[in-house]
Amino acid sequence: MHINELIEKKKHGQDLSSEEIHFWIKGYLAGEIKDYQVSALLMAIYFQGLNERETYDLTKELIESGDTVDLSSIQGIKVDKHSTGGVGDTTSLVLGPLVAAVGCPFAKMSGRGLGHTGGTLDKLEAIEGLSIDLSVEEFIQQVNEIGIAIAGQTANITPGDKKLYSLRDATQTVDNMSLIASSILSKKIAIGSDALILDVKVGDGAFMKTVKEAEELSQELVKLGHSFNRNVMALITSMDQPLGQAVGNLIEVQEAIRVLQGQGPKDLEELCLNLGSKVLVLAKKFQDQDLAYKALEETIVNGKALEKFNELIKAQGAKTDAEGLLKQELSPLLAEVKAKEDGYISTIHALSIGEAARRLGAGRLTMEDVIDPGAGIYLLKKVGDPVKKGQAIAKIYGKKNPDLDSIIQDIHKAISYSKEAIPEPQLILHEVL
Amino acid sequence: MHINELIEKKKHGQDLSSEEIHFWIKGYLAGEIKDYQVSALLMAIYFQGLNERETYDLTKELIESGDTVDLSSIQGIKVDKHSTGGVGDTTSLVLGPLVAAVGCPFAKMSGRGLGHTGGTLDKLEAIEGLSIDLSVEEFIQQVNEIGIAIAGQTANITPGDKKLYSLRDATQTVDNMSLIASSILSKKIAIGSDALILDVKVGDGAFMKTVKEAEELSQELVKLGHSFNRNVMALITSMDQPLGQAVGNLIEVQEAIRVLQGQGPKDLEELCLNLGSKVLVLAKKFQDQDLAYKALEETIVNGKALEKFNELIKAQGAKTDAEGLLKQELSPLLAEVKAKEDGYISTIHALSIGEAARRLGAGRLTMEDVIDPGAGIYLLKKVGDPVKKGQAIAKIYGKKNPDLDSIIQDIHKAISYSKEAIPEPQLILHEVL
Repeated sequence: MHINELIEKKKHGQDLSSEEIHFWIKGYLAGEIKDYQVSALLMAIYFQGLNERETYDLTKELIESGDTVDLSSIQGIKVDKHSTGGVGDTTSLVLGPLVAAVGCPFAKMSGRGLGHTGGTLDKLEAIEGLSIDLSVEEFIQQVNEIGIAIAGQTANITPGDKKLYSLRDATQTVDNMSLIASSILSKKIAIGSDALILDVKVGDGAFMKTVKEAEELSQELVKLGHSFNRNVMALITSMDQPLGQAVGNLIEVQEAIRVLQGQGPKDLEELCLNLGSKVLVLAKKFQDQDLAYKALEETIVNGKALEKFNELIKAQGAKTDAEGLLKQELSPLLAEVKAKEDGYISTIHALSIGEAARRLGAGRLTMEDVIDPGAGIYLLKKVGDPVKKGQAIAKIYGKKNPDLDSIIQDIHKAISYSKEAIPEPQLILHEVL
Repeated sequence: MHINELIEKKKHGQDLSSEEIHFWIKGYLAGEIKDYQVSALLMAIYFQGLNERETYDLTKELIESGDTVDLSSIQGIKVDKHSTGGVGDTTSLVLGPLVAAVGCPFAKMSGRGLGHTGGTLDKLEAIEGLSIDLSVEEFIQQVNEIGIAIAGQTANITPGDKKLYSLRDATQTVDNMSLIASSILSKKIAIGSDALILDVKVGDGAFMKTVKEAEELSQELVKLGHSFNRNVMALITSMDQPLGQAVGNLIEVQEAIRVLQGQGPKDLEELCLNLGSKVLVLAKKFQDQDLAYKALEETIVNGKALEKFNELIKAQGAKTDAEGLLKQELSPLLAEVKAKEDGYISTIHALSIGEAARRLGAGRLTMEDVIDPGAGIYLLKKVGDPVKKGQAIAKIYGKKNPDLDSIIQDIHKAISYSKEAIPEPQLILHEVL
């Protein structure tokens, strides 16, 4: 077998056999097959696609390229959640405590990546003393003891995906649904939760720009999950404006706490309750979504969700609790962005807000960049809100920044106004089972 | 500008600007753009193509990546010929002396490559003492003195093409007409002859398998040549069976000599006279092809073509002349292949014969392989010839070879028979101006 035969086959739209996909991934990881050959193959895949069986085989090879984490010693039906990424996406920090508070173990291992703001791990690390470096044993023990843990991938999970993804990133071969699905699910399946809900974001601030694309990816993900006998579903949710009001790290932790107190932004709360209630039904913890939804709301009202949050961060070493975190100061307030017109906010371009937050220090452009946990943007107004010219619509936090004027300009450009009232944007678009 | 933007554009079928193509080739040769990025771009080009302007720009960048050879100090209209490669393709060794004998300078610089048999350079090197390592000055001087030189590329001609071609070869991105055309013509244009005839081979022993492909490539080549203001034409010729009777190196030199003596195989003679007469008209040495054809035939009859061959090899250091070469022994006769049936030869699969010759030592699989100049195959019969079962149809020459039995089997497999008489196969199929 030779890699060139595989490239040639895929070029002509032929299927690769299981053996061929094994040969490819194994040879690539062993360094026998070169980057330049794999990137040509990936581009051929971009044009010709992978069928269901090929996607399954690729995912299997990626899983088998590294260690897998066996969560079977955790009692109960473990649930996990993955988001395809958006701006102000504080969901995991709310969702985890919520479902754990109703007795469903939440076991999440995350990777660290680039982004407009840090990922879940970076947000957690904005909490002083908190460590995300749990060994697999510590991780399992913590979930068994308090029902929740959110940790970094300490084990050698899917190194094949890591290598393949960096190559895809460097060669414009990321945007193929099968490749995306195999990358996402290989990591999730290697860490074996029982039920997994995927939050597939769609909109200008998300990787999927159209509902059609998001549906395609969701279907690909759910089919792929099922072929591994996993209990998977996807919720397609809007990412046309940032989720919630906070975009950053500490600022998003504070927002998560406010949601758990019943005082957070409604869109973020709604999304978390929806994701949570659906995954609880998926995990067969509840018979129907309404019951699950009410149970989750109840944990907010009776304080159990917040208590679970406090348990989580304490178990992982936090020096303070939710109350302490709310009091903690962000980086200095650099500016307030003021409305340029009277009327209603009609768009808040999520990608531009995310990019502005990154420039303030909230996210990374390269893995070497150091995040300022206190940097970020707080949106005082969201789409549909009425505003008066000159009224503050956003606050900007960060360290002294020579680009501040240009960042403010970019935020202005991200916002548009309407004279007419704007219908409330739909957040939850579609569900794929 | 970033290479990923170029990959993304081409992925979506957009054109690359001249500046972008310059950026790509320059960055690639400087090592700033990586193999794995270029191979992804090449695969995107395979799927999306290059338009005329892009192909021109790419060719220009490849030419400008190295030295160019200025032949303007050679008097007269210099002609050159290029073949896309086939089995038993002895054409240049006949064509050069023919056109030079009617007073048209023949100035050919060749690269060395892999192949079933060696290229023109390897065939010339089968002649004892002969050197193909001429400096540009020596090359020009020799053409001025005797009207003909065939040399290796001593100058640093199109290093960009060399680097790009090896990557294409390793990533299955060779077979795009624009890329093929730019690779062929960049080398030819960098060494500036006035008129160039391209022998585009089609058939199982050629790179182009169908007449449609060959026509596409021919049109691409001719258009591209014209956009560089070069006098270019293409002849599409059949490569379904080996050309002539000899497949090897010394054995092909001997066959070339026999053609120049008027005693060679008719197909090879016909091809050389056709290519020669067409390029003479292209070079405006003759007004019409018939006159040119007759003038070339005349040089065979009056011995001037053979004389020119002798001048050529003498000037480049040969220790013997045509007569001496005809007497020279090939490698030992290892076997005779005998007809398995009564009837007519209906096919002689060129690729298989070429492959058998390579296994006998006549060609290279890797650049490190050393050619046995005396190895080869001599076809006693060609397509259409009547045969009796048991009659010798091919002779095999080479050093002692453990694979001999399997080589003989392969030659048998390459040959098929018909009970009915076979019409003479058409050699010259189509001309593209």
